[in-house]
Amino acid sequence: MKKIKLHIAYDGTDFSGFQRQPGQRTIQGELENALAILTREEVEIHGSGRTDAGVHAQGQICHFVTKSPIPAEKVAYILRNMLPRDIVAVSSEEVPHDFHARKSAYWKTYRYQIDTRRAPDVFSRRYRTHLPYPVDFQAMREAAGHLVGTHDFTSFCSAKTVVEDRVRTIYRCEIVEEEHGYAIQVTGSGFLYNMVRILAGTLVEVGRKQLDPAAIPAILAACDRTQAGPTFPPEGLILMEVGYHPWNNL
Amino acid sequence: MKKIKLHIAYDGTDFSGFQRQPGQRTIQGELENALAILTREEVEIHGSGRTDAGVHAQGQICHFVTKSPIPAEKVAYILRNMLPRDIVAVSSEEVPHDFHARKSAYWKTYRYQIDTRRAPDVFSRRYRTHLPYPVDFQAMREAAGHLVGTHDFTSFCSAKTVVEDRVRTIYRCEIVEEEHGYAIQVTGSGFLYNMVRILAGTLVEVGRKQLDPAAIPAILAACDRTQAGPTFPPEGLILMEVGYHPWNNL
Repeated sequence: MKKIKLHIAYDGTDFSGFQRQPGQRTIQGELENALAILTREEVEIHGSGRTDAGVHAQGQICHFVTKSPIPAEKVAYILRNMLPRDIVAVSSEEVPHDFHARKSAYWKTYRYQIDTRRAPDVFSRRYRTHLPYPVDFQAMREAAGHLVGTHDFTSFCSAKTVVEDRVRTIYRCEIVEEEHGYAIQVTGSGFLYNMVRILAGTLVEVGRKQLDPAAIPAILAACDRTQAGPTFPPEGLILMEVGYHPWNNL
Repeated sequence: MKKIKLHIAYDGTDFSGFQRQPGQRTIQGELENALAILTREEVEIHGSGRTDAGVHAQGQICHFVTKSPIPAEKVAYILRNMLPRDIVAVSSEEVPHDFHARKSAYWKTYRYQIDTRRAPDVFSRRYRTHLPYPVDFQAMREAAGHLVGTHDFTSFCSAKTVVEDRVRTIYRCEIVEEEHGYAIQVTGSGFLYNMVRILAGTLVEVGRKQLDPAAIPAILAACDRTQAGPTFPPEGLILMEVGYHPWNNL
């Protein structure tokens, strides 16, 4: 028995999210189907977290346990030739048995990408939300500064969130100016349901002068979802990286 | 009656090429269907040239004639909300009646994009061909230099080409080094069937040391398709720009 850590990337556009669901095309479903053929076992994939329908990943991390004699490092290479083109197995390696893709994760970085061209760019349309409006980066950075730190993020998660403890730490929140657009890049200890999409919706409201950056502390304090901005659509969101403790980050 | 010039961009992945074909999803078909609704006329779209199935465009130019009173500049904006997401109407304008998208074209620029990462990048996989091999850029540039100029390109077009006159002029042929890959960018007076895909296939053979750059003049002189390299797949190819005389380039 060995435990294998798998780094995958995917274009979430044509998936009903990460989690396996009967009759739906999902990341977990495609991976488990390919691994069942490869290992001749029933394999259960554990991701660092679920991504919603339409959300992408550059650096999603999974683990699974197998009795298969296939060298751990070869798994990604073989999977690349088995998986559909919108999931790429980037690399694989054996990890200690106490590694867990979700429980061992120390931080995650998400990126929300926005295209401000008048006509959307056809080549990045699957990975950027089209919002052809000017924004005030300075105001957005001021608002982002209020979000950094340890807070109860109840105002910034879906009203359907079942988790009771909504305290999370945001380590960094950057507004990155790009050609014909910008990106909101956020690193935190963990994220609640829809949290990054609501952070993006709120920061863009600030950028468009519909919300004062100084209002953020009161929105956090309210612990009321209706106080923050809209939930932005999934297509602009990418899970960029998952960080592990060095001894789990082999 | 007015003549309207339309700049469009498309992701060719899910199209059976530019040209209208019964029962197939094509660029021309989608445009003509949308314009029929918009203008309440049967509209015929003329492109600067056809692109094959799977080939993309950043700067395809078309024209059509209409009696519709819709202001020419508004056409692109209205089309953007009618067309599927993989075709973008970038801009539109009225042009003189002697403008013709194909006949007035003076030059075209195509770009062939290659991803050299070991695992292909999932976000650009639709627009780059995955060839994870090192290449010798210097040798490729030497070969490209032999292609620039006016030549009979019979060796560099599909054996199925029906056009008799295969003399074309290549004005520029550049090898552009990029992050995790490279691109071959070529500007010419016109291109024969599959010509850019064969140029790319031949230049990459040179880059991989399978062909000597000094062999290019003899390959051109042979006027024999079997002498040049392979026809590369369509996904890496993008029609970047079509050039018109200044007085047609209004």
